[in-house]
Amino acid sequence: MPFHHKKTGNVGDADGSTQLLEGRNAVLEHLRADGPTDKLFAAEGAEARLGDILSLARKRGIPVSICDRRRLDAMSPTGNHQGIIAQTAAHAYVSLDALLSVAETRGESPLLVICDGIEDPHNLGAIIRSAETAGAHGVIIPKRRAAGLTAATARAAAGALAHIGVHKAANLAAVLDTLKEKGLWIFGAEADGTVSLYEADFAGPSAIVIGSEGAGLGRLIREKCDFIVSIPMRGKINSLNASNAAAVLLFEAVRRRMV
Amino acid sequence: MPFHHKKTGNVGDADGSTQLLEGRNAVLEHLRADGPTDKLFAAEGAEARLGDILSLARKRGIPVSICDRRRLDAMSPTGNHQGIIAQTAAHAYVSLDALLSVAETRGESPLLVICDGIEDPHNLGAIIRSAETAGAHGVIIPKRRAAGLTAATARAAAGALAHIGVHKAANLAAVLDTLKEKGLWIFGAEADGTVSLYEADFAGPSAIVIGSEGAGLGRLIREKCDFIVSIPMRGKINSLNASNAAAVLLFEAVRRRMV
Repeated sequence: MPFHHKKTGNVGDADGSTQLLEGRNAVLEHLRADGPTDKLFAAEGAEARLGDILSLARKRGIPVSICDRRRLDAMSPTGNHQGIIAQTAAHAYVSLDALLSVAETRGESPLLVICDGIEDPHNLGAIIRSAETAGAHGVIIPKRRAAGLTAATARAAAGALAHIGVHKAANLAAVLDTLKEKGLWIFGAEADGTVSLYEADFAGPSAIVIGSEGAGLGRLIREKCDFIVSIPMRGKINSLNASNAAAVLLFEAVRRRMV
Repeated sequence: MPFHHKKTGNVGDADGSTQLLEGRNAVLEHLRADGPTDKLFAAEGAEARLGDILSLARKRGIPVSICDRRRLDAMSPTGNHQGIIAQTAAHAYVSLDALLSVAETRGESPLLVICDGIEDPHNLGAIIRSAETAGAHGVIIPKRRAAGLTAATARAAAGALAHIGVHKAANLAAVLDTLKEKGLWIFGAEADGTVSLYEADFAGPSAIVIGSEGAGLGRLIREKCDFIVSIPMRGKINSLNASNAAAVLLFEAVRRRMV
């Protein structure tokens, strides 16, 4: 198992779907320990009392949502949130280099999956599961406007997170530049792609970029792709569920790499 | 559109569930497919991003209620409505003969997907979406111990139900016998299959059987399969999400049928 996953001191998991940590002290200690954190929810008007927490969050680049106290009341597992709730990651993220070193250690051509804004944790979890099953070396997700490694994602990944690393990128476009410098080809998946799935050469060092459920690939991300690959569609609907599209691309890579 | 969908008194069925479809992509596909729609709810301020949806609704004479985003939040089944919710009519099931006649009408070798006990409506909906996208002629589900065509399934199918029929079988094993008599080959999908995915001849008349999320194929169903096909696994986890497995098999069928 190449990755070490820190346990987060998660408190209460009211419905089993989120890892929530609440209370000023608990959240502050978690942040000081650099515990994996997806997002903070702070009560409107409590900012002054939460100064040290909010400044730490800013330093670490953790998004903060200032919201109505009643929203915190509703999401609070114990009812005693003291104006602050942290949504913590179930699993630790790893560096981009760590993902590439997995490919190197295995003596394989890198195969990475990049999720450009997947918001549904079921989809993200299923993508991580398919990536591991297809022998990919890692998954990359953006820091903002996307599902993270929450409990719901981990459940949908069905154990795959113990075997494949996930890197959280502050800037996805910059990651694509880095990967291109390292010799990877970037394949974006879109319905209107110019390269058919079966023409794409996934046998070389490859990163497959999957767009978000609603909007597809972001403009800048799309521009940075070396190829836009489309899955041949034979029905009236011209798009697949994001995780199903990822699975089809990944197993085409498996087929290519078997030959 | 080969299937006629009966209107049910949606919104508050007997079991209290409403037929709501949400998300920009799902609603747009549903409207483009002329799917039965009673009403749209759009978030105030989101009109610009919903331009194509709102203009289609106007053309079709579908009433649009512009309302506060919090109202959409409250009615949203998944919390991820992206500013738009459609109140749709439920979908009716069709006969087995109707599915086979679609293949005949198109002059194609039948391609059906059989779900042996898929319980998660997200998975069932994604399978229906992938089946339609891959040009399959129908989906078959069992009457008992499985997800049906609920609102959650329709949402996950993202408009595909307007283009592909679903047959609900009282006895799935008997349906397999019927399909075999009609000359279809039955391909069961299992991790321990004896036929590799790339050896399976999906170009002929084919039915692909996907097992349930937890238990895989039922014993009797498995016995009735002509081939047990396995997807080559290159990771430590040896199973895929049910809808991802279905997508991989379906698009291998597309590849086979292109040649």
